Amino acid sequence: MDTREGSVRFPRVIIIGGGFGGIELAKKLRNKEVDIWMFDKHNYHTFQPLLYQVATGGLEADSIAYPLRKIFKGQSNLIFRNAEVTKINPDNNTIETSIGNFSYDYLVIATGSTSNFFGSKELEHFAMPMKTVPESLNLRSLILQNLEQALTEPDPVRKAALLNFVVTGGGPTGVELAGALGELKRHVLKKDYPELNIDDMQIYLVEGSPVVLGPMSKQAQKSAKDFLEELGVTVLTDIKVSSYDGNTLVLSNGQAIVTKTVLWSAGVMGDVPKGIKQELITRGTRIKVDEFNRVDGYNNLFAIGDVASMSTKDYPNGHPGVAPVAMQQGRHLAKSIIRLINKEELIPFVYKDKGSMATVGRNRAVVDLGKIRFQGIFAWFVWMFVHLMSLVGFRNRIVVLVNWVWNYFSYDRGIRLIIRPFNRQTMTPDPTKEATGGSLNKPPSGG
Amino acid sequence: MDTREGSVRFPRVIIIGGGFGGIELAKKLRNKEVDIWMFDKHNYHTFQPLLYQVATGGLEADSIAYPLRKIFKGQSNLIFRNAEVTKINPDNNTIETSIGNFSYDYLVIATGSTSNFFGSKELEHFAMPMKTVPESLNLRSLILQNLEQALTEPDPVRKAALLNFVVTGGGPTGVELAGALGELKRHVLKKDYPELNIDDMQIYLVEGSPVVLGPMSKQAQKSAKDFLEELGVTVLTDIKVSSYDGNTLVLSNGQAIVTKTVLWSAGVMGDVPKGIKQELITRGTRIKVDEFNRVDGYNNLFAIGDVASMSTKDYPNGHPGVAPVAMQQGRHLAKSIIRLINKEELIPFVYKDKGSMATVGRNRAVVDLGKIRFQGIFAWFVWMFVHLMSLVGFRNRIVVLVNWVWNYFSYDRGIRLIIRPFNRQTMTPDPTKEATGGSLNKPPSGG
Repeated sequence: MDTREGSVRFPRVIIIGGGFGGIELAKKLRNKEVDIWMFDKHNYHTFQPLLYQVATGGLEADSIAYPLRKIFKGQSNLIFRNAEVTKINPDNNTIETSIGNFSYDYLVIATGSTSNFFGSKELEHFAMPMKTVPESLNLRSLILQNLEQALTEPDPVRKAALLNFVVTGGGPTGVELAGALGELKRHVLKKDYPELNIDDMQIYLVEGSPVVLGPMSKQAQKSAKDFLEELGVTVLTDIKVSSYDGNTLVLSNGQAIVTKTVLWSAGVMGDVPKGIKQELITRGTRIKVDEFNRVDGYNNLFAIGDVASMSTKDYPNGHPGVAPVAMQQGRHLAKSIIRLINKEELIPFVYKDKGSMATVGRNRAVVDLGKIRFQGIFAWFVWMFVHLMSLVGFRNRIVVLVNWVWNYFSYDRGIRLIIRPFNRQTMTPDPTKEATGGSLNKPPSGG
Repeated sequence: MDTREGSVRFPRVIIIGGGFGGIELAKKLRNKEVDIWMFDKHNYHTFQPLLYQVATGGLEADSIAYPLRKIFKGQSNLIFRNAEVTKINPDNNTIETSIGNFSYDYLVIATGSTSNFFGSKELEHFAMPMKTVPESLNLRSLILQNLEQALTEPDPVRKAALLNFVVTGGGPTGVELAGALGELKRHVLKKDYPELNIDDMQIYLVEGSPVVLGPMSKQAQKSAKDFLEELGVTVLTDIKVSSYDGNTLVLSNGQAIVTKTVLWSAGVMGDVPKGIKQELITRGTRIKVDEFNRVDGYNNLFAIGDVASMSTKDYPNGHPGVAPVAMQQGRHLAKSIIRLINKEELIPFVYKDKGSMATVGRNRAVVDLGKIRFQGIFAWFVWMFVHLMSLVGFRNRIVVLVNWVWNYFSYDRGIRLIIRPFNRQTMTPDPTKEATGGSLNKPPSGG
């Protein structure tokens, strides 16, 4: 399998994961004397900050995903493999994958994060996460299927369960998702479902701490809450989820909400590969790394981005799980690996926080840039500009821009398609309901 | 379920299917004194002529599908239901659906066509049809998965099977699909898979009759074949498929091709609903209708488009299964239904054939407009213009145009994403490989 063994032998760097961190790292190693292998279980990079717009019919999935092979086109020192890494063996410098075993000189774990249900099997089964493109498409199908079903549901309680949407977690993802649902209710539901009463659709945002957008400024927190309430979202703070059986969500204040749809953005944890010793896993199921992103006890094993926890003076509990941290760590680690190869001394990583932002529906966003803080329509333009420019690929940028301009002026979310119906019994997409070309009733073939 | 019963009672027209025919019919009945119910198992309309571009990564699926509710927004005499019609009972004027039974005054079957495997269970299982959006997405996944797998396949025969693509049927769909595969091989494969030898990918087009594009002019047939061969497609005419076991395709001339991918566009048949008497089904599994699209023996049962077979002087074996026929029959039937209600005499349907066209990769197309026939780059522009203008929805048109311009100048097919991996064992999409947010190895929750 290791076909390039034999010729001139550069140190081999294996990168697991083509997210924000892995991509920056690999790009910075372009033209360096290293032999890079990247493994990802998808053949595309996902721009996670816009997944909520896919889930709510505002953007095509395909315009926020980007083929990894295209990112590295012409980078002759990189080989990409669309394969799953099943185990790493840091003590003998190998990894096991779905297409065989590979040895490395340097290994970088850039696997990102996955949803954390805090041990609740019930929530893990019934709540809808939104960390990947397929998960966002599942959510889009389920939201639309619920509305279709509600039309013909005679029982008022079952109808309410179909039309109550509960978003858990008041971070940027939860806030943006709840806002987008509010827009959907206000501008699309009325036109698409004249038979339904718009007030029958209720959107809740449940946050365990006293405020939404915890790490942001007080101003941003207050504006975001106001914006959400203007859009008709019921914001419940200081309240946790107690249980959810697929029909009734019980909250820590005793309140119960009948709902078929709990959108889970209340917690994430590192997506740690098998083979990492338990004692190296810290708070948030992240891998403990030093200030060079090096895993304790190894000189050639690294973790970056969401899966890594680097404790520094400014961030004693690790850095926030956001794209800029992963990207900066990726770029920094590229330099560190070259220094290691050249036997030079390493320089510690320092995170440059450029600020944070969140949007809450049309003309409404909150932006904190250090001491500079603003909210409203200008913040909304800044949010759009930053996200558009961060997208990978010019085609994707244009298609997203066209959709945004269209959505803005038409008050529409044009992509409300149930392409992959979701089966709420099995909680998986249901190929049997979609793959049939014909359907009604296949007459005897050749008949 | 029939909530509107009781108030002023207009004649109820039930339309099964939101394809080209059903949509035109329903639109023409806008503002008329009828009570329209449309049923479709999808919540969107599919622009089938561009499915092949979805399958080959040139267009987003979402830009050739359009929400049916949006088409009929504000049409107050129409109710849409996203439900499956399981049976029709023309003798007591009712239909059975997945959401209950409904009675009608007029019933229009506009269910279109589905793939015809001419009784071969083997082909039905192993060949890949391309009549719906999900089927096109399956095809896109399979093509890309094959290329990824070929990279690491050591056995030369198994590798050839992954890289041989056989398109069956030399109609417009087969020709356009084979051409798009040729473009993919020429412009994308080389850049994305430098490890593969481009000549290892072989594309075959197999057509049972002596020519491709049978109903078109001799000029068009010859140019299309030349264009395909320029793109490296092996065109085999006068040859039929004998058998296919999932690995080896055997042809009627005895030739055998090892291939994992047989793209099926060799035959269609009407998607006839259960409840239609067997004696009403004719050639091509279509429902025999008179020149008013009326099903024999009924005064209030109609079929239009691909599912209908109307024998006329010009078309003794029924009209071609193309969008213009369905649209013209839909519009004509709208007038006929109003005439029936008003007890006026019906006017026979006459098809106005405006011509036909097919494209074969960049700068190459063939167009027949009656006596006017042309091929090459101008034909290609005409093809693009006509298809762009035929798309439903302004957003879709812009997004398709952006993609076409992008693809043209970049020689790229940007949407080569394996979002829904396809399982070649079960021949269905594989949710287990996609729905997992995390994946590598979920550590004990809460750990």
